[in-house]
Amino acid sequence: MTGNRGVAYIAQGKVEVQKIPFPKLEDPRGRRAEHGVILKVVSTNICGSDQHMVRGRTTAQAGLILGHEITGEVIEVGRDVETLQKGDLVSVPFNVACGRCRSCKEQHSNVCLTVNPARAGGAYGYVDMGDWIGGQAEYVMVPYADFNLLKFPDRAQAMAKIRDLTCLSDILPTGFHGAVTAGVGPGSTVYVAGAGPVGLAAAASAQLLGAAVVIVGDVNPVRLVHAAKVGFQTVDLSKDASLSEQIAQILGTDEVDCAIDAVGFEARGHGHDGAQHEAPATVLNSLMNVTRPAGKISFPGLYVTDDPGAADKAARQGALSIRFGLGWAKSHSFYTGQTPVLKYNRALMQAILWDRIKIADIVGVQIISLDDAPKGYAEFDAGAPKKFVIDPHNMLTAA
Amino acid sequence: MTGNRGVAYIAQGKVEVQKIPFPKLEDPRGRRAEHGVILKVVSTNICGSDQHMVRGRTTAQAGLILGHEITGEVIEVGRDVETLQKGDLVSVPFNVACGRCRSCKEQHSNVCLTVNPARAGGAYGYVDMGDWIGGQAEYVMVPYADFNLLKFPDRAQAMAKIRDLTCLSDILPTGFHGAVTAGVGPGSTVYVAGAGPVGLAAAASAQLLGAAVVIVGDVNPVRLVHAAKVGFQTVDLSKDASLSEQIAQILGTDEVDCAIDAVGFEARGHGHDGAQHEAPATVLNSLMNVTRPAGKISFPGLYVTDDPGAADKAARQGALSIRFGLGWAKSHSFYTGQTPVLKYNRALMQAILWDRIKIADIVGVQIISLDDAPKGYAEFDAGAPKKFVIDPHNMLTAA
Amino acid sequence: MTGNRGVAYIAQGKVEVQKIPFPKLEDPRGRRAEHGVILKVVSTNICGSDQHMVRGRTTAQAGLILGHEITGEVIEVGRDVETLQKGDLVSVPFNVACGRCRSCKEQHSNVCLTVNPARAGGAYGYVDMGDWIGGQAEYVMVPYADFNLLKFPDRAQAMAKIRDLTCLSDILPTGFHGAVTAGVGPGSTVYVAGAGPVGLAAAASAQLLGAAVVIVGDVNPVRLVHAAKVGFQTVDLSKDASLSEQIAQILGTDEVDCAIDAVGFEARGHGHDGAQHEAPATVLNSLMNVTRPAGKISFPGLYVTDDPGAADKAARQGALSIRFGLGWAKSHSFYTGQTPVLKYNRALMQAILWDRIKIADIVGVQIISLDDAPKGYAEFDAGAPKKFVIDPHNMLTAA
Amino acid sequence: MTGNRGVAYIAQGKVEVQKIPFPKLEDPRGRRAEHGVILKVVSTNICGSDQHMVRGRTTAQAGLILGHEITGEVIEVGRDVETLQKGDLVSVPFNVACGRCRSCKEQHSNVCLTVNPARAGGAYGYVDMGDWIGGQAEYVMVPYADFNLLKFPDRAQAMAKIRDLTCLSDILPTGFHGAVTAGVGPGSTVYVAGAGPVGLAAAASAQLLGAAVVIVGDVNPVRLVHAAKVGFQTVDLSKDASLSEQIAQILGTDEVDCAIDAVGFEARGHGHDGAQHEAPATVLNSLMNVTRPAGKISFPGLYVTDDPGAADKAARQGALSIRFGLGWAKSHSFYTGQTPVLKYNRALMQAILWDRIKIADIVGVQIISLDDAPKGYAEFDAGAPKKFVIDPHNMLTAA
Repeated sequence: MTGNRGVAYIAQGKVEVQKIPFPKLEDPRGRRAEHGVILKVVSTNICGSDQHMVRGRTTAQAGLILGHEITGEVIEVGRDVETLQKGDLVSVPFNVACGRCRSCKEQHSNVCLTVNPARAGGAYGYVDMGDWIGGQAEYVMVPYADFNLLKFPDRAQAMAKIRDLTCLSDILPTGFHGAVTAGVGPGSTVYVAGAGPVGLAAAASAQLLGAAVVIVGDVNPVRLVHAAKVGFQTVDLSKDASLSEQIAQILGTDEVDCAIDAVGFEARGHGHDGAQHEAPATVLNSLMNVTRPAGKISFPGLYVTDDPGAADKAARQGALSIRFGLGWAKSHSFYTGQTPVLKYNRALMQAILWDRIKIADIVGVQIISLDDAPKGYAEFDAGAPKKFVIDPHNMLTAA
Repeated sequence: MTGNRGVAYIAQGKVEVQKIPFPKLEDPRGRRAEHGVILKVVSTNICGSDQHMVRGRTTAQAGLILGHEITGEVIEVGRDVETLQKGDLVSVPFNVACGRCRSCKEQHSNVCLTVNPARAGGAYGYVDMGDWIGGQAEYVMVPYADFNLLKFPDRAQAMAKIRDLTCLSDILPTGFHGAVTAGVGPGSTVYVAGAGPVGLAAAASAQLLGAAVVIVGDVNPVRLVHAAKVGFQTVDLSKDASLSEQIAQILGTDEVDCAIDAVGFEARGHGHDGAQHEAPATVLNSLMNVTRPAGKISFPGLYVTDDPGAADKAARQGALSIRFGLGWAKSHSFYTGQTPVLKYNRALMQAILWDRIKIADIVGVQIISLDDAPKGYAEFDAGAPKKFVIDPHNMLTAA
Repeated sequence: MTGNRGVAYIAQGKVEVQKIPFPKLEDPRGRRAEHGVILKVVSTNICGSDQHMVRGRTTAQAGLILGHEITGEVIEVGRDVETLQKGDLVSVPFNVACGRCRSCKEQHSNVCLTVNPARAGGAYGYVDMGDWIGGQAEYVMVPYADFNLLKFPDRAQAMAKIRDLTCLSDILPTGFHGAVTAGVGPGSTVYVAGAGPVGLAAAASAQLLGAAVVIVGDVNPVRLVHAAKVGFQTVDLSKDASLSEQIAQILGTDEVDCAIDAVGFEARGHGHDGAQHEAPATVLNSLMNVTRPAGKISFPGLYVTDDPGAADKAARQGALSIRFGLGWAKSHSFYTGQTPVLKYNRALMQAILWDRIKIADIVGVQIISLDDAPKGYAEFDAGAPKKFVIDPHNMLTAA
Repeated sequence: MTGNRGVAYIAQGKVEVQKIPFPKLEDPRGRRAEHGVILKVVSTNICGSDQHMVRGRTTAQAGLILGHEITGEVIEVGRDVETLQKGDLVSVPFNVACGRCRSCKEQHSNVCLTVNPARAGGAYGYVDMGDWIGGQAEYVMVPYADFNLLKFPDRAQAMAKIRDLTCLSDILPTGFHGAVTAGVGPGSTVYVAGAGPVGLAAAASAQLLGAAVVIVGDVNPVRLVHAAKVGFQTVDLSKDASLSEQIAQILGTDEVDCAIDAVGFEARGHGHDGAQHEAPATVLNSLMNVTRPAGKISFPGLYVTDDPGAADKAARQGALSIRFGLGWAKSHSFYTGQTPVLKYNRALMQAILWDRIKIADIVGVQIISLDDAPKGYAEFDAGAPKKFVIDPHNMLTAA
């Protein structure tokens, strides 16, 4: 059991499956990690934020092993682990968190203060997030396992719903955090910018939270068709009709209660011409326009501090031209940052296990082999309305 | 247009449809009420709390005109009303509230400080609630109309969903308040004591809020059959298996996240023998038993300050023998009181209009004529799994 | 009693005391306002946001009667008013609000939907806020008086604390809203950008909320001296030591728990050279830098949708170059907009009446006559560490 | 360093200082505890809830080593501990918590699910709380040290304020939790039942939270004198004037915004005669009477599931005769249970270190030697207005 293979970032536009070392109970700083476990990876998803790295829009280094959306089976247990045993099936939050710092104790495991010497917050297989080895691999090490891992109560039940449960490591909690921080509740009208997996997960979460109506907007027609098929209202932002006009056609009013930006910094402009070019503040500014007074706007979509691929100098430093005065005049509030998965994943697991949310169908889960990971990256980058889930040990296909 | 008829409380077990005066823009203290409107009653529901009065378990006086669940059409508008016009279709919150006192400004319209000289909080057609004339009638006056009334956006759309919208005046917000204050959210496991309309509305609200599973308990087999039919798990408290045992059979654990008491002070005991007698603290004590540590317990069911029909002296003063130490050991919190309908009714209207909740089917709405109100009272009191909705002008049958 | 005089905006840099009509119970759209009262103005304060207009940084028209910070005595009462009588002493929230729309019912009186045809939210004597006549005058009309006005419980007690109570109409609740939305609580470390009256009120509010330490920053040395004198830590942003370095000297760490922007869009740069020029995103970007991960940043300082006096085209439309990626990386949230005064003023009145906050001393209240208002405007604009309070009837000097 | 001495419960009314084993890194179930540390006890306080045991009002067994209010110096560190080192000075929350279960992750460390096989929630030296050895001793073991311990940032600064910081392990957070859950905020009027240390800590916390006025009630005249001396309003419940009458004399109204029960189940009646006898529901019922509609009532005072010393059978099972209908009519909510110290202690430490709260003076800290612990118990039981702090190594006297 000493072999391992994983998906490595090689260069802009290129990933590759490589032989990599079998994981050790050791942290990236070389300290023994008896609080950790080693997992046989049951499923591991490709994320939109992986694409930012692969498109060369971050400072990620070649050789980085990708993968922060991990579900696995415990195969080795550190001596200080108390609540887990070999054979347990677990969901791994994408955040690496220690469970011992102020942030973790306050339910902000997204900005753990100890697992990343460079800044607050750690993640597996991600640039600037503490050098934790990614999980798009056969095996992976998870530190602080008692704190981080969510154990599925029944293995057979879990394998029967594994296409849904694989979404608990990131995509579903991230969409849910977007919906919660945007203030979605029973009866809300909601607009979600972006029909990719995060947008669809936010839309599904808004429904779970009781929203009256959820509208999803995008410039990609294939994604809009999928969004409509799984039950959402849609607006096509490549049209010249404005976002507020299209919303008014659906709602009878041109403002929504809650807005969610599931696009992030690689946004394109709106309208026939606009959609041809990047315009990083487009989504943000349009959301202020269509959100009602005193409304909340959330940002599950990623914005970066440094964007080497940006069109202008300001955007290269993460600075965008924002109509802040418009939001101020409407008393908006804004919620940013990565999701503290631990705050939500147990409840969302229950929603899946009791059939309250069909997240796999909604985000378009498609199972692929580890060897097909590069193809999955390419197809996802081309805008396919799918969520690619790597099945390194052929366990999902079997199930 | 000077005639009117309404349902009067006559004596224990007896109500009667009587001729009553056509309403005036005047409050119970005889002051002119230019802030009010007069409504033609479109629908008006019989409530479980009406039954407490009719069963002689309150100090209600003979002659009281009943009815606090009112939906109507504006037919006369006071001079100081700004936002309503003749012809508007509106839902009336059962709370009478002024919109001008500290309670109303803080969203506690359930304990308005000005509309009832005797204590905080007013209601239509209810003992101790300020002598506002009830709405189980052809016409009724609603004061502070701009503040109190919820206008339906479209008359035709509203009439098409009137069986559901009639539930916005009390039953649905009351169940919803129970679910919200019990902390129900996505993924919650929920137990609702009582399968009458409030219990079913609480259960439906828990589902709208994203609960993973909702369990409803009662001693009435007919109500349990209905509860199961509309989609809830059920437990039969007339059985000798304990509540926690029955919950464990459903959940695999004997505690729930959230508990809701939709029974109130006229509770019966549990088990084969217990169910034969009143035991007013039974529900309350059993909920502490089955609610998880740090859980919340809500009390949409009514508890009274004076109960002339109680079995013992303590209960006659509203004092119950509560295992407070048990709740304390589990760090429970408890949420009581009438529902501030205005806090919820707009959002719940949206949920109905966008087909997110089928409340009429869930509570078993049955339309009856004004003349059949006494029959409705009797049938409801006998435990029928129905919510009787009086249709004084034959508008619902027509619609 | 038909005469009246008020402070009019004449042109950039110029205000003048003019004869104006005695107020009528009538709204700006010419409708009779039986819900209103007429006040004899007891005190009315000059606000920093008045200065934006007088400096020509808004689209305010010549002739506008200024003044939205009003305390007064009821001298005439509309027919629909129920809770107020002649002789009552009242504080007027600067927001004009109807008490009848969705926003008002949800405690967002800052974005009332009915009192301003142009956008959500009304105010007295302010551009774009609904044409309500300002209160820097001898007399003023207040609509929806039952909803809007806060009555002082005892006239003599109120006059004895009138220098403090005059701060309830805007400055104290605005600072308090900034502190609350920034998440200030017991033990917090707080940074307030701006040592003008709003900044000082936010700092005082932070103390009332239990903050461990409150740091106030500015480029104006006189204001910093005053801030230190009334009990706050200070940082001098005209120095070349960075904000985070100066914070670290005080706290031993370079980040605070909570940050408050009490400067707004007319911000200057930091450092010796920076402080010479406007740099509207300076404060906002620096706050992201010094606020801890998962921290909250609030914006009581005004940002506008249109700034005719801005240095560049983007800023003229209220668009600023914001390092949004930095905030995102730290999971910040942002709270903007005007303050819903009604949400806070009763509690803050209690804090004043029970001697828990000395707001007049902290903001530097200075009483002036109505005729001296133009001098007050000029002195305030020059950066005096004072809050000018106009005393149109010589009642404060007398008291 | 192998000797140790601690305070043992011997029999009703009797405690004794005994030789006990030096602590091991081992839990009460005999499992190795590498997550733990051993502390040299710097200070350890006698708590009112210790008295319940010593008075024979619980099922505590003879030989139990008492003490759950502990401040110490780390002298031995388990292998799995990452954030602490020998020499660190730390505050120990009275709750034993694992940091790994659902409760702990949700900030409910008061009902940790793993440290006590009998029920949710653990504590040191306390009946029914998991058999963790108490800390009224020279040395004590603290498990899950990274999660549980609060490290003081500077040793010299900490020793200079040790009389205050010793209150962070229980008494101050417990009072604070009472104030927070009762809804205390700026401007609140607050009534605290009980002038013992918990009541005084709740009162001090209410002030820190910005309360306008804090009223403390008791039947013990010496405690009332102390409460008045440290700055609170007082009411004497041994007088025949009712609680609401006495409140009205202070406030001008007979209801408060927030109420806190710092007495618990060993309450006495009110009035001259009542105060002679136990009447366990007295406080609870009186608080419903004096709390405003929609107000919150919190219960930091202990209520038990079993009271072998109770006067009647119902109370022996923790059942009290509560006027629940009264609370219901006023829409009260109720907050019970032990305090999750970790939720508050860091912030309260900051408040102490920045001189925002003088908790030692307010609760009447008095330093005693370990040998004088039995005297301290006796004097405290007799009603002395003091908080006894044991100084086992003579470090406080030295400091």
